[in-house]
Amino acid sequence: MSSTVSRVRAAYARIEAVDRPEIWIDLRPRAEVEAEARAIDERVAAGEHLPLAGRLFAAKGNIDVHGLPTTAGCPAYAYEPRADAPAVARLRAAGAVALGTTNLDQFATGLVGTRSPHGAVRNAIDPTRISGGSSSGSAVAVALGIVDLALGTDTAGSGRIPAAFNGIVGLKPTRGLVPTAGVVPACASIDCVTVFARTLPEAEQALSYLAAPPDRPLPALPQRAPGPWRIAVPPLDQLGELDEGWAEAYEETVSRLAATGALIRPIDLTPFTEAAAMLYEGAFVAERYTAVGPFIDKLISSGGEGLDPTVAGIITRARDIPAHRLFTDQERLAALRTRALAELADADALLLPTAPGHPTLAEVAADPLGANARLGRFTNSTNLFDLAAVAVPAGEVHGLPFGVMLIGPAFTDDRLATIARTLEPRVSLAVVGAHLTGQPLNPQLLALGAVLERTTTTAPAYRFYALPTTPPKPGLVHVDEDGAAIEAEVWTLPPEGLGRLLATLPRPMTLGNVELADGTSTPGFLCEPSALTGAEDITRYGGWRNFLSQE
Amino acid sequence: MSSTVSRVRAAYARIEAVDRPEIWIDLRPRAEVEAEARAIDERVAAGEHLPLAGRLFAAKGNIDVHGLPTTAGCPAYAYEPRADAPAVARLRAAGAVALGTTNLDQFATGLVGTRSPHGAVRNAIDPTRISGGSSSGSAVAVALGIVDLALGTDTAGSGRIPAAFNGIVGLKPTRGLVPTAGVVPACASIDCVTVFARTLPEAEQALSYLAAPPDRPLPALPQRAPGPWRIAVPPLDQLGELDEGWAEAYEETVSRLAATGALIRPIDLTPFTEAAAMLYEGAFVAERYTAVGPFIDKLISSGGEGLDPTVAGIITRARDIPAHRLFTDQERLAALRTRALAELADADALLLPTAPGHPTLAEVAADPLGANARLGRFTNSTNLFDLAAVAVPAGEVHGLPFGVMLIGPAFTDDRLATIARTLEPRVSLAVVGAHLTGQPLNPQLLALGAVLERTTTTAPAYRFYALPTTPPKPGLVHVDEDGAAIEAEVWTLPPEGLGRLLATLPRPMTLGNVELADGTSTPGFLCEPSALTGAEDITRYGGWRNFLSQE
Repeated sequence: MSSTVSRVRAAYARIEAVDRPEIWIDLRPRAEVEAEARAIDERVAAGEHLPLAGRLFAAKGNIDVHGLPTTAGCPAYAYEPRADAPAVARLRAAGAVALGTTNLDQFATGLVGTRSPHGAVRNAIDPTRISGGSSSGSAVAVALGIVDLALGTDTAGSGRIPAAFNGIVGLKPTRGLVPTAGVVPACASIDCVTVFARTLPEAEQALSYLAAPPDRPLPALPQRAPGPWRIAVPPLDQLGELDEGWAEAYEETVSRLAATGALIRPIDLTPFTEAAAMLYEGAFVAERYTAVGPFIDKLISSGGEGLDPTVAGIITRARDIPAHRLFTDQERLAALRTRALAELADADALLLPTAPGHPTLAEVAADPLGANARLGRFTNSTNLFDLAAVAVPAGEVHGLPFGVMLIGPAFTDDRLATIARTLEPRVSLAVVGAHLTGQPLNPQLLALGAVLERTTTTAPAYRFYALPTTPPKPGLVHVDEDGAAIEAEVWTLPPEGLGRLLATLPRPMTLGNVELADGTSTPGFLCEPSALTGAEDITRYGGWRNFLSQE
Repeated sequence: MSSTVSRVRAAYARIEAVDRPEIWIDLRPRAEVEAEARAIDERVAAGEHLPLAGRLFAAKGNIDVHGLPTTAGCPAYAYEPRADAPAVARLRAAGAVALGTTNLDQFATGLVGTRSPHGAVRNAIDPTRISGGSSSGSAVAVALGIVDLALGTDTAGSGRIPAAFNGIVGLKPTRGLVPTAGVVPACASIDCVTVFARTLPEAEQALSYLAAPPDRPLPALPQRAPGPWRIAVPPLDQLGELDEGWAEAYEETVSRLAATGALIRPIDLTPFTEAAAMLYEGAFVAERYTAVGPFIDKLISSGGEGLDPTVAGIITRARDIPAHRLFTDQERLAALRTRALAELADADALLLPTAPGHPTLAEVAADPLGANARLGRFTNSTNLFDLAAVAVPAGEVHGLPFGVMLIGPAFTDDRLATIARTLEPRVSLAVVGAHLTGQPLNPQLLALGAVLERTTTTAPAYRFYALPTTPPKPGLVHVDEDGAAIEAEVWTLPPEGLGRLLATLPRPMTLGNVELADGTSTPGFLCEPSALTGAEDITRYGGWRNFLSQE
């Protein structure tokens, strides 16, 4: 069976297994998608270059996918698009296959993922919590491994908040890089099409096919000389109230960046948060009425079937905002933007938590407007200021994903992604022999960028052997009974380093999952079964160094 | 024993083992370096942030290292520097430890690595071939794994040619980013300090500590919007005569870049090669006389002890070049530079072989000037045009390293490294079970960026088991007798992808070295010894798919 077809079958099996029907507005029939996948596989087999062949994607329900209705989450608004939106067309031209359109906060109005007649989209990790929105279904479809990529949109943070809450990557490109043609507008002047993926390289790859030179001249900015990244970081008290543990998680991310050599620059966040508050409180929300207000008014007069009441309230209330207030707000925004860019002048990126906290579905139901307004504290200003942003996972707090954003000037998208790469999760490795500190192969680890995390032992479930190799190597073997705890060091290193270590690993050593004393497990050194022939059981020494010193 | 100290001991053991005394001009006493390493380890243990702690480096013999004489490869020229050159000081401040000064083409005049009274530096891989120069000892010390990093200099290509010939990375930063204070000048107006490392991330990390904002204003250039990289590639016939197999290796590199989505733009290489020819044939060589000519004249008059005759000839002949020829050449160079930049205007980088071929020591001895002139065909123009360059390995030809350069405008160093990353070697992975094409876990491979390379079998040295897991997993076990060949697919993927696969691998699966039918070996799926208890021997089926279909 060919790759893309098998990938499609696996995706539909996964859709059934996860049982999250609220993700989708329109899921394409499996047979139709399989036929498309087969055609992709045939073109690849014929030698055609389709760089995204084998990748599956979903599009947020406010983006035109030819063959499916565009609804923006409001069934009465549905229209049959005559073509794919350019963003969809570009992914398809590169070989990716679309599965369908995803649920969203209706008319992309919200950051919660609950404002939809198709139901609230539950968080991928904790179904009692919100997915975040408005690109809710797209983010959860990626997080649950159904699709590789998904398109979202971002006006106030809709391409980043759901990335943070579901532990995935969300790229919010500079406005204009990805065309918004074929997208139902929220605030047409600042809307952006975004992309979700589970890893930064996958998201970057997709963006490279989505983006095209925009129809505005690129600004001339001074080139940046090599040297440590300069990261703007506000004082903690300017972040306002955060969920418990989130300030610590943010500070730890700052420390991780500093440990890679980045220079941390203090910054005044006030212009950012003041502009953020203007997005819904000020006159800018009137642009949403421009987009879909008359339609909503008409729908309400005929009964309001399928309208989300919170969304309808926000948009219809915007009808009476006077234009003079918009002039006042625009003037104020311009002044805030000047201050914000001055704050960023001496930095390559601003680092912020993506959101101040992660509410439950019940909390949002209890206070739909208040909970939503709080969520946008760090994201709302980005598009108002014409900035680019990259949202990436940055660990966990109480078992839930914690995410941060890197924000920078327009057209620094590539640079933001490069900086974000330094935040990518490291992997751990348990070593029990010649790679231990001070042992002959330890420098190999150091050269791969490894850092010693802790010294511990394995779970008491191993026998330990001196293999009959030259020089002698340790053989760690998991056993069901008579196991002992063996001295181990746990190192952390970039995934790339672990891959390179494995690529040069000689027989009979292997790398597999090693259980540790505290019940966790990590990749670590093991050995092939055949290596044990003629090996000496040295379990009684409790570790390699002890064995060497007493030998 | 602490990490840096053990690293130092391993380095001195390696120096002894490789038996390449010509690498060094002055190697520091081991005890002195160990004491310095111990101090580094203590500072790290005390909580100090030393990002390059544990890394060892060497400095080319024309760069000041406090405590060692600076000779530029000419013992009579020796002086005792009163301080480290800034480049050396910056690596030391970040925690790296210097082992000594390395051999070079005398006065950094040459691209061969043979022009030294300390002996010709032999190639790291094939000792009958040249190391390349002039930063010969630095490159070979890195390539042989003695040090992690080494400083070189680059006027005509001295930081790149030896990188290519020894299979390592050489970064030639934009002129001015790394100060040339404390460096014996070759052509003072265009000399650059460079860095060698075995991998691009290591070299980039070192450069981030070496570079500082230069003392000239950074040019304002249009920002680059995301989108595929645009790579300038000249027609093959403009590359001139290449060693056998090198044109194919270059074309394969172009194909690999194109396969990552890069857009290939044809370019006229003429202005680059015409400028390259001017470096030694024209008046610019007079700047070398400015630097060390009077010293050489005086040394010759007192017997010329320790002078390399080729170098002395080149520099003393430059004494009589008239200044009016320099004005003519400068004018011509400016015109060529304008043409070259126009050629690059529509591209992010120019891709070239680093050198046109790799001569033997005997070939260079037979024609010292001709062989050298040929080597600089692609590198000579870079500094004359004020461009940045990154030299990286790009496979092998007849068992010898083949290298390419990415060249771009001044201050695009970071971007060139980012593009070069897409060329980093992929690693291979043998799969025998659920990761095979069409099997349930195959999409996991695809999502990691894996591409099917070929279908084959293991060497006839394995037994094959259905493990008693749910679902059943395959257990591949190396045996000394009664082995069979088992169906396998070999995939290639980025090292990062292999590391991430390993990080999520569940017991009892392991990854280790698998022998293939053609005698090569590759990382692949194996299993823990304990997994075999209760497993069914399915070797007779010859493969997982056959077992599943006949089960």
